[in-house]
Amino acid sequence: MYSEELKVRFYETDALGHVNNTVIPAWIETGRIPVFELFASQGSPYEISLIVANLNVDFLRPVYFGFPVTINTYISRIGNSSFVIGSEIWQKDKLCAKGASTLVNYDYKNECSLPIADEIKLKLKEKAHPEHPLKQ
Amino acid sequence: MYSEELKVRFYETDALGHVNNTVIPAWIETGRIPVFELFASQGSPYEISLIVANLNVDFLRPVYFGFPVTINTYISRIGNSSFVIGSEIWQKDKLCAKGASTLVNYDYKNECSLPIADEIKLKLKEKAHPEHPLKQ
Amino acid sequence: MYSEELKVRFYETDALGHVNNTVIPAWIETGRIPVFELFASQGSPYEISLIVANLNVDFLRPVYFGFPVTINTYISRIGNSSFVIGSEIWQKDKLCAKGASTLVNYDYKNECSLPIADEIKLKLKEKAHPEHPLKQ
Amino acid sequence: MYSEELKVRFYETDALGHVNNTVIPAWIETGRIPVFELFASQGSPYEISLIVANLNVDFLRPVYFGFPVTINTYISRIGNSSFVIGSEIWQKDKLCAKGASTLVNYDYKNECSLPIADEIKLKLKEKAHPEHPLKQ
Repeated sequence: MYSEELKVRFYETDALGHVNNTVIPAWIETGRIPVFELFASQGSPYEISLIVANLNVDFLRPVYFGFPVTINTYISRIGNSSFVIGSEIWQKDKLCAKGASTLVNYDYKNECSLPIADEIKLKLKEKAHPEHPLKQ
Repeated sequence: MYSEELKVRFYETDALGHVNNTVIPAWIETGRIPVFELFASQGSPYEISLIVANLNVDFLRPVYFGFPVTINTYISRIGNSSFVIGSEIWQKDKLCAKGASTLVNYDYKNECSLPIADEIKLKLKEKAHPEHPLKQ
Repeated sequence: MYSEELKVRFYETDALGHVNNTVIPAWIETGRIPVFELFASQGSPYEISLIVANLNVDFLRPVYFGFPVTINTYISRIGNSSFVIGSEIWQKDKLCAKGASTLVNYDYKNECSLPIADEIKLKLKEKAHPEHPLKQ
Repeated sequence: MYSEELKVRFYETDALGHVNNTVIPAWIETGRIPVFELFASQGSPYEISLIVANLNVDFLRPVYFGFPVTINTYISRIGNSSFVIGSEIWQKDKLCAKGASTLVNYDYKNECSLPIADEIKLKLKEKAHPEHPLKQ
C-alpha cells in the first residue's frame, strides 16, 4: 500500500463549507501516480499505457479545510490485462471517501488490451492493502 | 432529461493531450444542478439536502479540446429516500463517458435520510431518459 | 472585442460562499482562446507560440453562483513582439474583476521573441475594446 | 518567510505538456494561508477579513510534472490598511514564477478598510524575505 499525506487547499472547498465532491477523484488520481511507475519497464507510455476505464467513489463523510488528509492507495484486484486500485481518503482518523479505479493495460499501436507481465503482477501484489486480501 | 452544451476549457486538458479524467466528475456535477432545484419546495438546503453518496463513471473515449461537449442528465432510478442520476458526456456524436450518481435526501436536523415527497417523485419521473426506462 | 457568457459551476465556489479568486485566471484563459487563433497563420504552435508572460488581476467584487457571467476579452496594447489582452468579468451588470495578460510571440526553435506580423497586428486592432482606445 | 514544498499533480498539467498557467495562482493561494492566521486575533473572519484586491504574476519558466516545487511566501510591503504578499515558485533551483498579492484588511460591518493593528504589523515584518528588504 502507498500512503501519502496532503493539506486541503482552500480553493478545494465549496459554498457548502467543506471540500467539494469533485476534488476527491482528483486526489485519487494523485494517489494513483506511483502505481503507473510499476509499469515503466513496459516502455514508452505513448505506446503502451494504463487507461482508467472506471472510477467508483463512495462519499462517506465531508472533508474539511484545516486538517491534514491521508490517501491510501493499494491494489485490490489483479486480472489478466486489467486491475483495480483501491483508494481511501482519511481525515481525523475517519474514513471520508473510498474509491475503486479500474485500469486497463493498453497497447495503442495495436489498439487492444495487453496482458500484464508476470513481473509487474508480482510488484502489484506487494502493494495490496495490509488488511484486505487481494480479490482475484 | 436535461441537456446542456459546454466548451472544453484549455486548462481542463492534461499532458496526455486530452481532457483529464478528473474533469468528468466536475462536468457531471454541473449537469446535476437543475435536479437539485426540483427539491427546492422542501425548504432550506441547510436543513434538508441531497447528499451525493456514490459516483460511478465509465470512461469510454478521450474528450478533446476544440470541440463542443454535450452533457445529458436524467433520472435513472427512484427509490424511497434516494435516487440515481445518469449522466452522459458526448463529443462529436460519440458517447465519451457515462456517470451514475446516487443521491440521498437527507434531514440534517434529525441526521437521517428522508423519504422523497410524492410530488417531487413525479417531477423526477418527468426527467427520465427518453430511451431508457426508469429502474425501480 | 470578444464576449462570451458562462454559467458559474458549483465547484468553482469556496467556503466563503462565492467564486474562489483562483477561478478568475482560469476564466480569463478561457476568454483568451480566440486570440490565439489569430496567430494560426504563423504555423505550428509547437514552433512559434504565444507565451503568457504576465497576468495582472484586480478583484473588484465577489462573483456568485446562480447568475450568468460575461467575459469580455479585448486587445489593449500592441507592441513589437508582445501585446496585452484585457479581460473583464461582469455579473449582474457589475464589473467584478479586470485582467491584463501580457503575451509574447515566441520562436521556440531560435529561443527568442519574434515580431508580430503586420497582418496579425491588423487583426488584433479589430479586437480592441469599443470604449477604450488601444495603448501604444 | 514561509516555505512549503508540494508535488505537482498530474491533472495540473495541460496539453502543452507542463503545468497550466492558471494553476500558479492556486498554488499562490495555498502558500498565502498562514498569513491569514496572523490576523486571527482580530476576531471572526466573517466580520473582519482580508480581501485579495490584486494579483500580479510573472510566468518565468514552465513548471513540469515529476519534480517537487517549492513555494516561498513573504511580506514585501506593509501599508496602513493593506499589505503585499510576495510569492516565489521554484523548481529544480530555478525561479519559475513570481507573484505579488495585494491584501486589504476589511471591516464587513462598516464596509470600509481597517488599519492593521501594530501587533499584527510586527508579526508581518517577521515574515519579510530574508534577501529583499520590505518596501514601505
